[in-house]
Amino acid sequence: MSISIAGTKLIEPAFEDILAAHKRIRPFIHRTPVLTSSYLNELTGAELFFKCENFQKTGAFKVRGACNAVFGLDDTKEKNGVATHSSGNHAMALSYAAAKRGIGCTVVMPNNAPKAKKAAVEGYGGFIVECTPSSSAREHALSMVVKQTGAEFVPPYNDLRVIAGQATCSLELIEDVSNLDTIVVPIGGGGNISGATLARNYMAPNISIIAAEPEQANDAYRSFKSNSLITDDAPSTVADGLKVSLKEITWHFVSNYVNDVQTASEVQIIDAMKLTWQRMKLVIEASCAVPLAVILKHPDAYRGKRVGVIITGGNVDMDALPWN
Amino acid sequence: MSISIAGTKLIEPAFEDILAAHKRIRPFIHRTPVLTSSYLNELTGAELFFKCENFQKTGAFKVRGACNAVFGLDDTKEKNGVATHSSGNHAMALSYAAAKRGIGCTVVMPNNAPKAKKAAVEGYGGFIVECTPSSSAREHALSMVVKQTGAEFVPPYNDLRVIAGQATCSLELIEDVSNLDTIVVPIGGGGNISGATLARNYMAPNISIIAAEPEQANDAYRSFKSNSLITDDAPSTVADGLKVSLKEITWHFVSNYVNDVQTASEVQIIDAMKLTWQRMKLVIEASCAVPLAVILKHPDAYRGKRVGVIITGGNVDMDALPWN
Repeated sequence: MSISIAGTKLIEPAFEDILAAHKRIRPFIHRTPVLTSSYLNELTGAELFFKCENFQKTGAFKVRGACNAVFGLDDTKEKNGVATHSSGNHAMALSYAAAKRGIGCTVVMPNNAPKAKKAAVEGYGGFIVECTPSSSAREHALSMVVKQTGAEFVPPYNDLRVIAGQATCSLELIEDVSNLDTIVVPIGGGGNISGATLARNYMAPNISIIAAEPEQANDAYRSFKSNSLITDDAPSTVADGLKVSLKEITWHFVSNYVNDVQTASEVQIIDAMKLTWQRMKLVIEASCAVPLAVILKHPDAYRGKRVGVIITGGNVDMDALPWN
Repeated sequence: MSISIAGTKLIEPAFEDILAAHKRIRPFIHRTPVLTSSYLNELTGAELFFKCENFQKTGAFKVRGACNAVFGLDDTKEKNGVATHSSGNHAMALSYAAAKRGIGCTVVMPNNAPKAKKAAVEGYGGFIVECTPSSSAREHALSMVVKQTGAEFVPPYNDLRVIAGQATCSLELIEDVSNLDTIVVPIGGGGNISGATLARNYMAPNISIIAAEPEQANDAYRSFKSNSLITDDAPSTVADGLKVSLKEITWHFVSNYVNDVQTASEVQIIDAMKLTWQRMKLVIEASCAVPLAVILKHPDAYRGKRVGVIITGGNVDMDALPWN
């Protein structure tokens, strides 16, 4: 299917593109394990299969899309490096990918970003350009970086190269777990779930793809129900990886291919996060507790089913746990 | 080798006994994964292989020994059930094992044990008998239980059936990771490390077995260095699974077969625990952060080596993390 955005026609990645992405990134990523919990299976009445991207390089699935973009650059483009704006997992992922290719990576971050996040980006070799904390300042700073350095902008999610990379996460899950009925994916900007719909469309069209979103950052839910893209500015939620909104490209995949969007409250998200830590012994971000939270909230929708759950990442500030 | 304790001769489990234990318990336990971390490898200059018993049934390796004891009972003994005293992982493990065999399990616990631990034991089907919090009260209560019910006492660690079960943990590690130079094991009562020495002796005699102990509960260290069993009463350490002391049987294995005992401070243990949570995304107990703490403290002893690390368990009170 082709996507027309602002007069530009974009072609959806083909299955071959996703397979090529997987081959391209394989040396730089982990094939993460799929874990199960008999306790959570009993609790939900479903069979849950957790795809553990918290064990992924840089601690999150983002490295898949970043590596696909970076290693897909041709030689003329690579010399100027890559750039992005992010204060989260994409910044670390892109820094890691660029370092692996041996090219520069500039990350625009707000000057009030936590020190630990800056240190993490620098730890992976990224170069930080600070800006005042606003969308306009961020975009201005990024455009200046690109202008001055010729760096290739790799967006956090609204990008087909990135989406093709993220699709490899569900590709592996579908390969490793037979006969899934459903895959539940946290939704923020929509990069991971866009990739999930592609993998599903090509590999196992009967699987339902459910987006899991915080009630307090429910732009995808409202967009989906009203069938028109709604973007919110700076919602507040403990699931801080999901504060960002869908954009044109990810909205294309969500509006056309996602089967439903379900939401959970802050308390439900924190409870599901804590339960996963306690019972599965996995450090997961609040963002990827949202799928378990919606499963626990809507038991009838999942009982008796084989359900994939994408654990998107495990980068957590241990000094600021949400239940303390 | 035979062990003479209080005039009774005990025969060390043979390799066949450990293989039989493994076969006996296999339906009831996980073969836990061995995980690695490129970050921790770079930090230590060693290759570390983490045997993740935090993913084990009931959240700790203890279920191996408990299952071996319970499923090794003959039919005449099984009808009266099993009993133990423990306020920790052994209590849950024995309750789980007994429930799997369909027999009763009575656990003597001090009346000031945390509610969460009592709930966990009851959740696995154990029946709790409370006593006042002292060693003498505990032993008295246990002997009363055994007298009244005829239950088989399954000690937490000072028991050859239990030790043969725990040996399967290092057996799997040695099977799964070739050419290990060293295995570092937390030491409390010494059940796990006794099993580790057995597996090593039979399978790979060149591997060094190092005991890792909190400085503040260093009875094994002092016993090892003075070559005589020293037991302390109620030491204080964040590694609460390691407060107990060696007893006659585990001392036999430690004194004869352990290559060295190394200790770490409270701060070093907490730092290693937090580092493991942050970098490996694993919820581990403070007790099993002691091996990484001693590795970080003695880098020259481990640099360039292939080092197995036993992550003994992941049962942590999320509301009382030691760095908060």
